[in-house]
Amino acid sequence: MERKVVVLLSGGLDSAVTAAICRERGFSVHALTFRYGQRHSIEAQAAVRVAERLGVARHVTQTMDLRAFGGSALTGDLDVPRRANALEIERGIPATYVPARNTIFLAFALAFAETIASTDIFIGVNAVDYSGYPDCSPQYIEAFERLARLATKAGVEGADFRVHAPLIAMSKSQIIREGVRLGVDFSITHSCYDPAEDGAACGACDSCVLRRKGFKDAGVIDPIRYVARTGD
Amino acid sequence: MERKVVVLLSGGLDSAVTAAICRERGFSVHALTFRYGQRHSIEAQAAVRVAERLGVARHVTQTMDLRAFGGSALTGDLDVPRRANALEIERGIPATYVPARNTIFLAFALAFAETIASTDIFIGVNAVDYSGYPDCSPQYIEAFERLARLATKAGVEGADFRVHAPLIAMSKSQIIREGVRLGVDFSITHSCYDPAEDGAACGACDSCVLRRKGFKDAGVIDPIRYVARTGD
Repeated sequence: MERKVVVLLSGGLDSAVTAAICRERGFSVHALTFRYGQRHSIEAQAAVRVAERLGVARHVTQTMDLRAFGGSALTGDLDVPRRANALEIERGIPATYVPARNTIFLAFALAFAETIASTDIFIGVNAVDYSGYPDCSPQYIEAFERLARLATKAGVEGADFRVHAPLIAMSKSQIIREGVRLGVDFSITHSCYDPAEDGAACGACDSCVLRRKGFKDAGVIDPIRYVARTGD
Repeated sequence: MERKVVVLLSGGLDSAVTAAICRERGFSVHALTFRYGQRHSIEAQAAVRVAERLGVARHVTQTMDLRAFGGSALTGDLDVPRRANALEIERGIPATYVPARNTIFLAFALAFAETIASTDIFIGVNAVDYSGYPDCSPQYIEAFERLARLATKAGVEGADFRVHAPLIAMSKSQIIREGVRLGVDFSITHSCYDPAEDGAACGACDSCVLRRKGFKDAGVIDPIRYVARTGD
């Protein structure tokens, strides 16, 4: 029987590459997506397309409302910052940080994993381009693994839960090249924090800026649609 | 200004006493309740009553669907065991264990706390009567605190998140006596895992059995309604 793994799938580029890595390793991919009250549902729709394209064993979407707490640009409480290029992205923790988001996501992934008797969770976090987010660090991942073993029936019975973050030390261009190698269809992924009504990416939020720079550095054409801007 | 705390409020007896402890200490109580796909919504309704009675500063109810994963009697996948008395409650992890539930609850509590600039989460877990649940142990609580400091913007900036479990070492009768002292109205709390249609407690699930024994040991009359049974 194939080894079952839970993969957090956002619909973005990083999680699509993470899921493709799991497929290449021959795992039975159980994908988990969240609608958590983002400004738009385009990301979750992209996750459905990515899951279908990869042919995952199962795809569960959890809906919740993190807007009830507030405190983030991604859930509509703050403006999404726009930049001219990657150099403008400030150091420190960005406005798009959502309080405790990855902890909530990993907690659900742990529930999913324990239910299907899996001990492996894959998450597409990255500590290079997203160094400002606390819940993307190797120390954080290790702390969650430790918690998982104490938190669950399976854990106290000896299951050695692991949180795998295969992209954690890769640059965006390395991730894109890995995706190309694995045959990921980037045209169905979505990265923009603040897309237009028709789904076109803004091209100027941190996520778009990092994505565009990554494709440029990798020497690969980004197949998604961006809002036309002067100078493009 | 009053110190803000987040209290996990289930509508049960333990969390009502926990919230009353916070009120006695003069904290600004921010209550958090979950509808997670239980067999019934009576518990969440009880939480609303308890929050109103205590006069909390804010009460947020999060809705999610843990049935999507399955694996627990509380979400309808297994039968709720019934007992004649407390001696029959088996050792080990009960069928009513919900995979990773407290981790999910604490993750949301952490998001709530960070958003309101609080560093204190109160949870009514108990390691005496619920010794079978892994996510009620002191080691688990400590592991979550460690995670919280790494997981959040506030934590990496120095906030010392604490998860308080004031009932963790108390017996059910001690918890009930503490509730009496604090003026908790037990008639509006709900403990039963498998209530009748009209809301009456079954009297025979683990939660009812522990509650009844606790009131008996405390020498206090339990004001809630139980389904009439032969021999009662």
